Amino acid sequence: MIYADNAATTRMSDAALKTLIELSKETYGNASSLYTLGQRAKEVLEKARADVAEAIHAQPREILFTSGGSEADNQAIRSAAALGKAKGKTHIVSSAFEHHAVLHTLAKLEKEGFTVTLLPVHGDGLVRPQEVEEAIREDTCLVTIMYANNEIGTIQPIREIGAICHAKGVLFHTDAVQAIGHIPVDVELDNIDMLSASAHKFHGPKGSGFLYARKGIRLTNLIEGGAQERGRRAGTENVPGLAAMATALSEAEAALEERAVVTAAKRDRLIQGLSEIPHSALNGDAKKRLPSNVNFCFEGIEGESLLLLLDDRGIAASSGSACTSGSLDPSHVLLAIGRVHDVAHGSLRLSISDDITDEEVDYIVRNVREVVEYLRGFSPIWRDLCAGKKEFIL
Amino acid sequence: MIYADNAATTRMSDAALKTLIELSKETYGNASSLYTLGQRAKEVLEKARADVAEAIHAQPREILFTSGGSEADNQAIRSAAALGKAKGKTHIVSSAFEHHAVLHTLAKLEKEGFTVTLLPVHGDGLVRPQEVEEAIREDTCLVTIMYANNEIGTIQPIREIGAICHAKGVLFHTDAVQAIGHIPVDVELDNIDMLSASAHKFHGPKGSGFLYARKGIRLTNLIEGGAQERGRRAGTENVPGLAAMATALSEAEAALEERAVVTAAKRDRLIQGLSEIPHSALNGDAKKRLPSNVNFCFEGIEGESLLLLLDDRGIAASSGSACTSGSLDPSHVLLAIGRVHDVAHGSLRLSISDDITDEEVDYIVRNVREVVEYLRGFSPIWRDLCAGKKEFIL
Repeated sequence: MIYADNAATTRMSDAALKTLIELSKETYGNASSLYTLGQRAKEVLEKARADVAEAIHAQPREILFTSGGSEADNQAIRSAAALGKAKGKTHIVSSAFEHHAVLHTLAKLEKEGFTVTLLPVHGDGLVRPQEVEEAIREDTCLVTIMYANNEIGTIQPIREIGAICHAKGVLFHTDAVQAIGHIPVDVELDNIDMLSASAHKFHGPKGSGFLYARKGIRLTNLIEGGAQERGRRAGTENVPGLAAMATALSEAEAALEERAVVTAAKRDRLIQGLSEIPHSALNGDAKKRLPSNVNFCFEGIEGESLLLLLDDRGIAASSGSACTSGSLDPSHVLLAIGRVHDVAHGSLRLSISDDITDEEVDYIVRNVREVVEYLRGFSPIWRDLCAGKKEFIL
Repeated sequence: MIYADNAATTRMSDAALKTLIELSKETYGNASSLYTLGQRAKEVLEKARADVAEAIHAQPREILFTSGGSEADNQAIRSAAALGKAKGKTHIVSSAFEHHAVLHTLAKLEKEGFTVTLLPVHGDGLVRPQEVEEAIREDTCLVTIMYANNEIGTIQPIREIGAICHAKGVLFHTDAVQAIGHIPVDVELDNIDMLSASAHKFHGPKGSGFLYARKGIRLTNLIEGGAQERGRRAGTENVPGLAAMATALSEAEAALEERAVVTAAKRDRLIQGLSEIPHSALNGDAKKRLPSNVNFCFEGIEGESLLLLLDDRGIAASSGSACTSGSLDPSHVLLAIGRVHDVAHGSLRLSISDDITDEEVDYIVRNVREVVEYLRGFSPIWRDLCAGKKEFIL
């Protein structure tokens, strides 16, 4: 099988798995316990925190461990909202193509009296810093814009957006779930106040993630109870999982530039090959995107059938976010960048890892081409397009 | 080392670890993805859900997977509160010795306008069903009483309390984190509407837990985002961890009665031995307690020093909950059953597993006796007690 859905989840690295297994066997003590086994677990936990902090140029005390990216997004936004509300600031700026962990939290806040401005995303899949600046009001308490989009992989001008937020005195959060471990992220240089990440997106285990929150930002608890995580996230610390996350992240950071170059070359080979399929189009800017991400629309077909047939041919890919699979609605991300419904339905996301070979890339291109042609043979929309009853868009 | 802090956390069983490793390696797909690898993960996830449901005599759709017991407690109570508020019912009945995941959530609800009645706990560490009945009002939306206490191990009259709640039409939640996998729990027979559990308390992995919620109870999300867990808990499913939890639970359930008998015999041997230390007392009823739990107070000493010296002698134990270690306050549980501050400070919890030997039990008894005597030699309180300046309580 060729696994080309690394944006949905990744396979754990051997080193991360080794950490997970060893700690589960040997260092199973409760990190809040006083005896040696507990204190050893605590040391491992704090080493993991230091490693995670170092990877994004933060301080260890600025890292809060969570069960994943969604939890981190929820807690970041809830915290900023609570801080804002205390000052009478109840306006939040975000974008139309954020992850649902952000969008649904914002929707809930709207019901609680907050006002949310969702900035448009342009055809290139990029948010414009100037539009962020214009959207910020006197009562804005938070700007939350994702670092890289999970479907189309476009990398946002985070540093500029962060600078604008700081000049205006507004908290800036970024959902960096797709970026961390894949492209350089530096919370200082990037002017980031809060950042969410998830281990299983960078070859760490599922069920572990973290929230970076700049020193001085008071977090609101999502989970009340014990005094873990400096009283901001209750529950026995998942030391093996969190340490395995740190192992994976350190490993990813050490190889980041090298892997990015290799992966981007494969990405571009994929894009080149798929571009030759008639009536197709790349979604999102060709260069300002994750090294791993390829996302195409093919006119006249339906993405789900494409995936199932590619699966038959040993290719694991997706039409967009795994979090919304099963939904009949087209991707909100593709709609946000201006794709019409019919076209957005015919999407394919390939998110590769650096270990993919040129032969595998070519195998994917050949098979996507064949399956797209096959599916178009059955498609009433394609028939109408060819008969001139509908106009081609791509 | 003799590990006698299984109430804080347990070592993973070999079978659970095997599940965790195998799935991390082979079945790493996103359970929400359409292709074979994702669907295989989904099948594993749903098999885990069915196994967990079977263990407590629930239906699979009544099981919501979480990151642990604290999250489950928070979500259960928040959900009942939201349902109550919609009907104008804002009163909650609980007990004074609940876990902090319950107590702190209730404290937060009080700030939001709810009224909470915390029932007293009697000297035997048991809540009285009649007092629950008397506390329920017209506007009561929830009764939440733990199945077994995490510090003193007393098993509450859950079935009777559940019957009272159902007769009165009030939702009944139980934090069963210490009970599941250790004593028989049947949500039907026990009249339970919602139940929280945590994998690492029954030899499963850390970072996995579940919330049982009877069919028809609408849950409020703590974590918004993707459509996982029927839209009630966002975030990529931690399939390896959750399946390892199911493995551990099925294993625990299969051996439950046999292990309970073996463990209770060791517990009673421990209790017998420690009772012979002068001015000591068992906390909580001697029989209506978990087979694994021993909790003593020793007059004139300070629990933390006791733990550190026992650690030097290769015994891992605790003074109470790991979640509150580091706190200078005495255990709220021991205060709730009527221990005065001085006495409550001198507590020792030993929570054993069925694999402890008689020799290890005797080693513990001998060393606790020696260390208690040693510490009393330095204790000003003990000097005052012996000099008749203070009266012995125990």
